[in-house]
Parts: sequence; structure tokens; C-alpha cells
Amino acid sequence: MARQQNAPDPSRRSEQSRTAILTAAAGLVAEIGFGKVTIEKIAARAGVGKQTIYRWWPSKGAVVFDAFLAANENASGGLALPDTGDLGADLRTVLRLTALELDDPAFDRTGRALTAEVLTDPDLLREYRQRLLDPLLEVTRDRLRAARDAGQLRADADLDLAVELLYGPLYYRWLHGLGPLDAGYADQVVAAVLGALGG
Amino acid sequence: MARQQNAPDPSRRSEQSRTAILTAAAGLVAEIGFGKVTIEKIAARAGVGKQTIYRWWPSKGAVVFDAFLAANENASGGLALPDTGDLGADLRTVLRLTALELDDPAFDRTGRALTAEVLTDPDLLREYRQRLLDPLLEVTRDRLRAARDAGQLRADADLDLAVELLYGPLYYRWLHGLGPLDAGYADQVVAAVLGALGG
Repeated sequence: MARQQNAPDPSRRSEQSRTAILTAAAGLVAEIGFGKVTIEKIAARAGVGKQTIYRWWPSKGAVVFDAFLAANENASGGLALPDTGDLGADLRTVLRLTALELDDPAFDRTGRALTAEVLTDPDLLREYRQRLLDPLLEVTRDRLRAARDAGQLRADADLDLAVELLYGPLYYRWLHGLGPLDAGYADQVVAAVLGALGG
Repeated sequence: MARQQNAPDPSRRSEQSRTAILTAAAGLVAEIGFGKVTIEKIAARAGVGKQTIYRWWPSKGAVVFDAFLAANENASGGLALPDTGDLGADLRTVLRLTALELDDPAFDRTGRALTAEVLTDPDLLREYRQRLLDPLLEVTRDRLRAARDAGQLRADADLDLAVELLYGPLYYRWLHGLGPLDAGYADQVVAAVLGALGG
């Protein structure tokens, strides 16, 4: 059956609902915290039925996670690491930003709640890996590979190990509240990794 | 009022209830997984009332966590790092064991569920830090300090950073499922940390 010219465009309506749901989810998390957000509350605020949400997302965590991704996409446009030619300076820039973000109390609460969901929900972990973590690790490896090709890292430096040595300690310190997450700590981690793998 | 000679000893009865509760909690987690364990089920299996459990523990996570601690205390008696005089060999021993444990599917499910609880419950995180994590990090720092005193690490090596460089990457790889957790990976991490901080 041909679609009538003046009927509402279903794909456009879907897109509006999707945006309303993501906006509602992000707003609710900021206002009442991840733990108190429910699919019901998101649906009510977005003006859609619960089933509309469940058609697109399997769980509350998945919706909230997509809401954060949407916000980040608007802000940054794309993922890339600086390449000034100075590997140490570029890694310090990235790790300082990471430390700052982890140290932000507004991020901390939501970040912990989302991390907890990701750890115990294999589907959500897969989504998180595909959409956020793997691209981040990949651009970091790309930057390290360029440095290795330029002789700034040992020729046999393992880049999977390198990214885990960079991000692992910050993440470990953050999750367990072991110490300050500041520029000084970020710089220490970068210096250690360059000391271990430097050319 | 003086206690009668033949009355049951209340402290002994408490100890029996406590042991029954911890045994029930550990058994249930192994059988049905952390997610499906409830305070009700633990109480029923231990033959006590729910209120008895809530008198000693604030949450399901706290009971299960204590059950794991009790099991580990029985098995090992105390926490210490080997000191053969060869720092690399000693750290490889510890990190290989850590990798093996994280890679064990039986540990993985419970470990993820408990980690998720710890991350989102500040009281449980404090308990986890005090009872398990801080002692582990402390004995690791002790071993590194002895090596530093013996000139096997740089005199200015930061021991807080060192333990986070050792355990952080394994933890990061485990939680996100980034790659194999085996002896080869453990050895790589140790080599990197010694390369960064070695004397």
C-alpha cells in the first residue's frame, strides 16, 4: 500500500520518540540518580508507552547508556587522540582529562551505577564495548602505533598491554577510591608506561 | 539476674547462628548465583529468622561478602607475599594466581556480582577495603618496599602507583573481557612494572 502524502512519517515519529526517551532518561538520571530511574518514569516523562521503550532497548541500563552516548556524540563529534608528535604530552592530555572526568562527583554516581550494570549484564557490556570502550582503546592504540613506528616506543611494545597499563590504574583507583585522581597522578602513570615501553 | 548453669550459652548460640548463616550464603551463591540469593533464602536455609541476619548485616551483599572472607580465612590463614629475594619471581607468582582466579568461571559470576555491589554501596566498599583490598595492597607494598630498600627498585619509586600498575591492568582486562587472563599476561605486566620502576 502506498503511503499517503499527508500521513505522519513513521520514521520521523520514531526519531522524535527516540530523542524524547533519551532526553527524559538523561534528565532523570541527573535529577534523581540512576538507582531510582525506572522504565515507567522514563516513559511518563517522554510521553510514550513502556512498550515503545522495550521495543528499542532491553533494559533501563541500555536506555541510560544510549542517552550518555548521544550526549557525548553531540559534544565531541568523534573520537580521536591528539598527535602533536610528542607522545608523552599527548598521553598526559588524555589521561588528565580521564582523571578529571572520573573525579567529577556528578560523573561518579552515574558512572558507578552504569559500571555496575555493565559488569553484570553481558548484553550491556557488549554494547558498551562496541560503542565506547573499543573505539577509545583503538584510537589510543593508533596513537601508540604511530609512536612505535617513529621509534618512540620499543619495537616489540605490546599495544594491548600498553592501553591497559594506561587506563587500568586510573580505573582501579577510581572504583576503589584509593587516592586522588588528578593531573599529577595521570602524569605519573604516563611516565611509568613510557619508562616501561619507551624506545 | 545470675545466669543458670544449664541454660544455653547465648554467645555460643550466636556463633552457631553466624556460622550457619555464612555457610548458607556461600552455598546458595554457588548453587543459584548471587543475583537470585535473597536474605529470605539465606534465613530459611540457615534455620534462623530474617531479623537475626539483619541484626548483624545491613544487606545481602554484606553477608555474602563475609561468607567469602570466612572461606578464605579458613583456606589460607593469613595474607602475605612470597619473598624469595627475587622480586620478579615473587610478583609473577602473585599475579599469575590473581589471573587464574579471575579467569575461573566459578569466580567470575560471583566476582562480578559482588564487584557491582561494592561499587554502588559505599558501606560495602568500606568493608571490602578494610577487610580485603587494603591488606592485599599493604602486603604488596611491603614486598616492594623491601625490594626498594635492597636497590631492586628506583629509590624514588612510588609504591601506591606501583601496586595500581600491577593490579589495575588485570582488573581492567577482567571486568571488560578484553583478553586472556593467563600466566603470559601476568608476566608481561610484571615485566612492564619492573621496566618502569626497576633500579
